[in-house]
Amino acid sequence: MMNAITIREVAALAGVSVATASRVLSGNPATSPASRARVASAAAELDFRPNAQARALRGARTNALGLLVSDVRNPFFADLAHTVEQAAILHGYVTLLGNANERADQQDRYLDTLISRRVDGIILAPVGAGSDSIRSLIAREIPTVFVDRTIAGMDVPSVTTDGTAGIRQAVEHLAAAGHTRIGYISGPQASSTGRDRFAAFTRSVVENGLSPDPALVYFGDYQAASGSAGVHALLGLRKPPTALLVADSLMAVGAIASLHDRGVRLGVDLAMVAFDDIEWFALLNPALSVISHSVADMGRTAVDLLLQVIDGGTPASVVLPSELIVRASSATTATAGTPATPPTAPTASHNSVRTH
Amino acid sequence: MMNAITIREVAALAGVSVATASRVLSGNPATSPASRARVASAAAELDFRPNAQARALRGARTNALGLLVSDVRNPFFADLAHTVEQAAILHGYVTLLGNANERADQQDRYLDTLISRRVDGIILAPVGAGSDSIRSLIAREIPTVFVDRTIAGMDVPSVTTDGTAGIRQAVEHLAAAGHTRIGYISGPQASSTGRDRFAAFTRSVVENGLSPDPALVYFGDYQAASGSAGVHALLGLRKPPTALLVADSLMAVGAIASLHDRGVRLGVDLAMVAFDDIEWFALLNPALSVISHSVADMGRTAVDLLLQVIDGGTPASVVLPSELIVRASSATTATAGTPATPPTAPTASHNSVRTH
Repeated sequence: MMNAITIREVAALAGVSVATASRVLSGNPATSPASRARVASAAAELDFRPNAQARALRGARTNALGLLVSDVRNPFFADLAHTVEQAAILHGYVTLLGNANERADQQDRYLDTLISRRVDGIILAPVGAGSDSIRSLIAREIPTVFVDRTIAGMDVPSVTTDGTAGIRQAVEHLAAAGHTRIGYISGPQASSTGRDRFAAFTRSVVENGLSPDPALVYFGDYQAASGSAGVHALLGLRKPPTALLVADSLMAVGAIASLHDRGVRLGVDLAMVAFDDIEWFALLNPALSVISHSVADMGRTAVDLLLQVIDGGTPASVVLPSELIVRASSATTATAGTPATPPTAPTASHNSVRTH
Repeated sequence: MMNAITIREVAALAGVSVATASRVLSGNPATSPASRARVASAAAELDFRPNAQARALRGARTNALGLLVSDVRNPFFADLAHTVEQAAILHGYVTLLGNANERADQQDRYLDTLISRRVDGIILAPVGAGSDSIRSLIAREIPTVFVDRTIAGMDVPSVTTDGTAGIRQAVEHLAAAGHTRIGYISGPQASSTGRDRFAAFTRSVVENGLSPDPALVYFGDYQAASGSAGVHALLGLRKPPTALLVADSLMAVGAIASLHDRGVRLGVDLAMVAFDDIEWFALLNPALSVISHSVADMGRTAVDLLLQVIDGGTPASVVLPSELIVRASSATTATAGTPATPPTAPTASHNSVRTH
């Protein structure tokens, strides 16, 4: 893995002192963004391998991984953190967890913090479209794996879910029940999952012979409040949707709370399906139909890929499947009534339809 | 803060080399448990202040905190992690999060990892009754604050909830509805909250003129599976309880899933109250009665206390209040029927009693 390029050549090309280049390449936070960018660019151009050199210098691994999730309050990422940690422990690694809170600036602070604290590698659910901190991570060849999300143009091994199948099944299921106006609360278009799921939804609507209506799409940010805002916007339409597809679990929580407050009965007044199969969703009454993908497989695979990268390998990315699980929340067929009308009749029994 | 004791004197008393003492005191993991114990003991005896010395030596703070939670999948701790992180960021700190998964050995690995990675201080929800790693943390005067839980005999500032008021209100509420057999799924007695809540429950049962029955208490471990096991054990009794109090949110999730599978209707066949007010609990149908305490106040207070300790202060511990929030899950009055009988009638409307 060693090559002939030295830190002096990197410093010369970057136009900084050797001391500055060393600080940047060792992850010392006392460096300017401009220096970091210049050194990272020079290191990439010269194919300098600071990671292998540093590893040779310090002799031993740290046996710590960094895991940076987008939002720790999202049960999907809490489960992912648990799974990654358990898989890492089997290989003798502890996992330092950071929470980007869906903010790119917070993500970058964590990346800098993790790097300066010497982890052997980083598993990252990236927020946003890429940043200097992420590019620096790649340029310095710190072993990195993307999980759940990717960044266009960055050649990093990843483990993601292909939401297409699950979303297609959900739209087919709703269209077959007679729904022609399906609302969609989307994730942010700056994230790969936000884009991919929205594209799959739009394709599926057309494939099922429905007219795409931009008014039926609300763009949220994967956090709970935007799910509530989405319900407010979509049910406020002159022709509101009779079914709702929500692109992640936290926005679904916000949407359900808002529907609850409005007296809209799931599975009676409005059909609903959410992306992400969270344990609690099956306990709701009516139980929530979901698009399921395996967080356990995702966590274990992310650790496997990262260990391969740490060992000098270049593993192929892994794409996991998704599938629809129908429960009572989408048992309703489309009606002409407006879904915002409060109910008077009691709902179905606590023990009604539940296929999962 | 500096005193005259040097590392040579600590090493001499501990019977180790200065290099070993230095490695132990700087948190280097390449030290034996025996050396760590001897050096920690000698440092405590001599009132050696490695933290102040180390700070003086390295000149600057790291602006990173460690937060070690008991279980990141517990929504209470996920919310706590979010709150701590947001409060820490306001003061320029990033938070490295570790997950003990309710295991003392995993907790100790994280403590060693966080210390060796130079954090300015640690917020810890301790698992178990104390360990060498925790004692070493205290002996080395690494700024530490306990959150949610404490350890008997350790003089560490803490922020905890007094569950007594909430538990007393819950038992009074259930007794007033005619319940005489109240089941209790307890937290582990190795944790302070497990002990305190169980003691409050036992006192409240007696105060309300009910006969304490050891068979009505199941000791869980604060994780979901033990909530299911508790339901299995308690509903399998020849005289099962007509009401159930569950000591944390994750065990409540397990209990609800198990009741759901058995066809037991909450608020109809069995009254239920859970400790911890999780957003989702209000969305269940029937909505779940809870004992509420403020995770936001707890997180903010933990950061405030830790910053005071880092600045050399000795802040007093803070105890936060708890209170009962009655929702539909405990609206039922006691009946003679066995709660394990599956229902035939539909449950109440989705929009029935909900005081919160």
